[in-house]
Amino acid sequence: MSAYDRFLSRSGSLMRESAIRRMGTLVAQKRDLISFAPGYPALETLPWQALAEIAREVLSGAESSVLQYGPTRGYRPLLEAIQGIMEARAASTTIERLIVTTGSQQGLDLVARVLLDPGDVVLVELPTYTGAIAAFRNVQAEMAGVRQDPDGIDLPDLEAVRARLTGAGRRIKFLYVVPNFQNPTGLLISLEKRRALLDWATRHDILIVEDDPYRELFFEDSAGEADVRPIRADDSGGRVIYLSSFSKTLAPGLRVAWIEAPPPLVARFEVAKQAGDLLTGSLDQRIVYEACRRGIVDRQLPLLRRTYREKRDVMVAALRRTMGDDVSWPEPRGGFFLWAELPQEIDADRMIPRAVEQGVVYVAGEAFFVDGLGKHFVRLSFSAPSPDRITEGVSRLASVIRAERGRLSAAGPAAPEQVPPEEP
Amino acid sequence: MSAYDRFLSRSGSLMRESAIRRMGTLVAQKRDLISFAPGYPALETLPWQALAEIAREVLSGAESSVLQYGPTRGYRPLLEAIQGIMEARAASTTIERLIVTTGSQQGLDLVARVLLDPGDVVLVELPTYTGAIAAFRNVQAEMAGVRQDPDGIDLPDLEAVRARLTGAGRRIKFLYVVPNFQNPTGLLISLEKRRALLDWATRHDILIVEDDPYRELFFEDSAGEADVRPIRADDSGGRVIYLSSFSKTLAPGLRVAWIEAPPPLVARFEVAKQAGDLLTGSLDQRIVYEACRRGIVDRQLPLLRRTYREKRDVMVAALRRTMGDDVSWPEPRGGFFLWAELPQEIDADRMIPRAVEQGVVYVAGEAFFVDGLGKHFVRLSFSAPSPDRITEGVSRLASVIRAERGRLSAAGPAAPEQVPPEEP
Repeated sequence: MSAYDRFLSRSGSLMRESAIRRMGTLVAQKRDLISFAPGYPALETLPWQALAEIAREVLSGAESSVLQYGPTRGYRPLLEAIQGIMEARAASTTIERLIVTTGSQQGLDLVARVLLDPGDVVLVELPTYTGAIAAFRNVQAEMAGVRQDPDGIDLPDLEAVRARLTGAGRRIKFLYVVPNFQNPTGLLISLEKRRALLDWATRHDILIVEDDPYRELFFEDSAGEADVRPIRADDSGGRVIYLSSFSKTLAPGLRVAWIEAPPPLVARFEVAKQAGDLLTGSLDQRIVYEACRRGIVDRQLPLLRRTYREKRDVMVAALRRTMGDDVSWPEPRGGFFLWAELPQEIDADRMIPRAVEQGVVYVAGEAFFVDGLGKHFVRLSFSAPSPDRITEGVSRLASVIRAERGRLSAAGPAAPEQVPPEEP
Repeated sequence: MSAYDRFLSRSGSLMRESAIRRMGTLVAQKRDLISFAPGYPALETLPWQALAEIAREVLSGAESSVLQYGPTRGYRPLLEAIQGIMEARAASTTIERLIVTTGSQQGLDLVARVLLDPGDVVLVELPTYTGAIAAFRNVQAEMAGVRQDPDGIDLPDLEAVRARLTGAGRRIKFLYVVPNFQNPTGLLISLEKRRALLDWATRHDILIVEDDPYRELFFEDSAGEADVRPIRADDSGGRVIYLSSFSKTLAPGLRVAWIEAPPPLVARFEVAKQAGDLLTGSLDQRIVYEACRRGIVDRQLPLLRRTYREKRDVMVAALRRTMGDDVSWPEPRGGFFLWAELPQEIDADRMIPRAVEQGVVYVAGEAFFVDGLGKHFVRLSFSAPSPDRITEGVSRLASVIRAERGRLSAAGPAAPEQVPPEEP
């Protein structure tokens, strides 16, 4: 409660703080905290010198457009470069289907605002990306969760959830999926399921929002180009709204991402973006464009795949060594995240103060679930810390979990988790 | 109508394209078009070399935070620099009252989303900034217009509009004003009126959203520091939400602005921004911070004031010479804009194709009015074109207007403008 509550809009009152962002603040506050919380890229891998050179060149003053206002759709040569990237992902497109966004978070926000009315339903994976949950919740949409198998979203459950909601008269606007190295689970949706999703969406006149930031970061021991084929690549009917980003392949501080979608929708996203932030930063767009044109982004990819794969290996080895019996996880085949299931009795969110005390932090699983479950899961990002810090952090986490189990067994059995009845 | 209309939200359907942005696209399409349309800064005045040097230094790789995700509130040293700027504007503040935004357009969008429910009323000046109209309309707020005098908003009309709306049971959340060199009129609100606005807002429990991008750009022949004192400077009761930006004092392509407001509101803006775009570009923030720290922003100001004043002089002289009898305007004492009233019978929006044909373009006044009037006004930005181009552009505009009057008098008298009855 504050003296300003009476001025807030309904959505202004309902907005909730991001669990991931909250963890980010913690990191800044405590020294020697090893953070597995935010999905920060490993920027020690960046070609800093090449970027500094690009910045120096484009800021020569020869072209004032580098620091001027520009088109809301984006810098035209960058849009053309993105068209080339889409082509390389087997998803040919045209400039009319593209818009640059200020990070994919803005993309999700534009999708939410243009498509969702209060009370509309979005289907999401259980668990799913918290930033998407926040964007959809901020327009007062409701989310219904669909279970995941080891090869991604559970199709019979998807259909069951859809049928139940439709039967209850609810309007489902779209299914939101992160098919490649999902945030938070790291899972891949199998190719057969991707095609089945398209058929299902067409049959029931539902759109698919495909959020694809991690696809380039496959680990070559267990995944390859063929496994990360976008759903969009097989969409000839205009069912898919595709989002991707340079945040994970170049740098997130540049805030450059894109949406690819049918032209009438892109035209609406553009109008929404006009009032949202006018344009994505001109210098950022120019730097990203030059990094594409000079082959820097492409040259980064093998290095990134190797770097993150090594870090995953270190984390997996440390987890096996210290917590192999207590904790389980699907082995990440790409991306930034390891999704660990702790002993049932542990409430990961409540354990955070004790973890921080021991100098380690994670994101508690609950934030990723729209059904109120997932209290005993944690998302561990292996992307940013060095291998040594990963090993040390996992060892700290193991002590915290051991201590927590001791504490809890001394306190007696806890009540089992329950689905809150009001969720759709 | 498109095949996707059935998927759009109500606000997604209602969003309208920005008249200013539309003009921006025109400029890009036609060669030798002299554009008085967008409020683009004169970037030939930028200290390009100093900025290139900053970019090279901060991209050395020594600090990966320059390209990493960072706090949603903003880069802490930049927040401290902004605190210093507020202090220099006689509006002392604390870090807890500040948030960096991705341009002031995002600031307006955050204000709209956090404060406005569908049907809430915002009071705005007649005319007012189209980007604010768009942000408020996108959350389905309604706007009620208040007349302006030569010294800014008309206080008796303000009170009359308020009383009428309150009497009709409507909820007025805030008054939106651009007190310094308003977009589009270039007018200043007098100091007495600023104080009266604060009293009025307190008396009626209404907030004031003070949008202040142009205040540093006063022309020293007719305005000074004392004239641009923020309303916020005299606000001890937490009535004012203050927005300002580096877009006009440094460069708009960097997308760095801020909101200063009571802490409970800033906390809500932060949560809204988390889901909106996570953070403002890290590199942009770092460059702006360094430009502040090294005194570059401060050193620019005298040059900017001189440059824009000279351009205003050129435009005013050209208008007097070519259209002194047909067109009138309040002389701008700062900022980017000259607000010209054309002969009553001219519809400036309809005249655009003929103006473009003659190689000149402006923004038609109607877009700035929430009451449907203003068809015979045009906003002429003198900020971007060179003095020679301003002279030539005004001369082209004079021919277009002469031809239009001839065309219209041949066609017979037009119906007078009418206020559409459904506006609040």
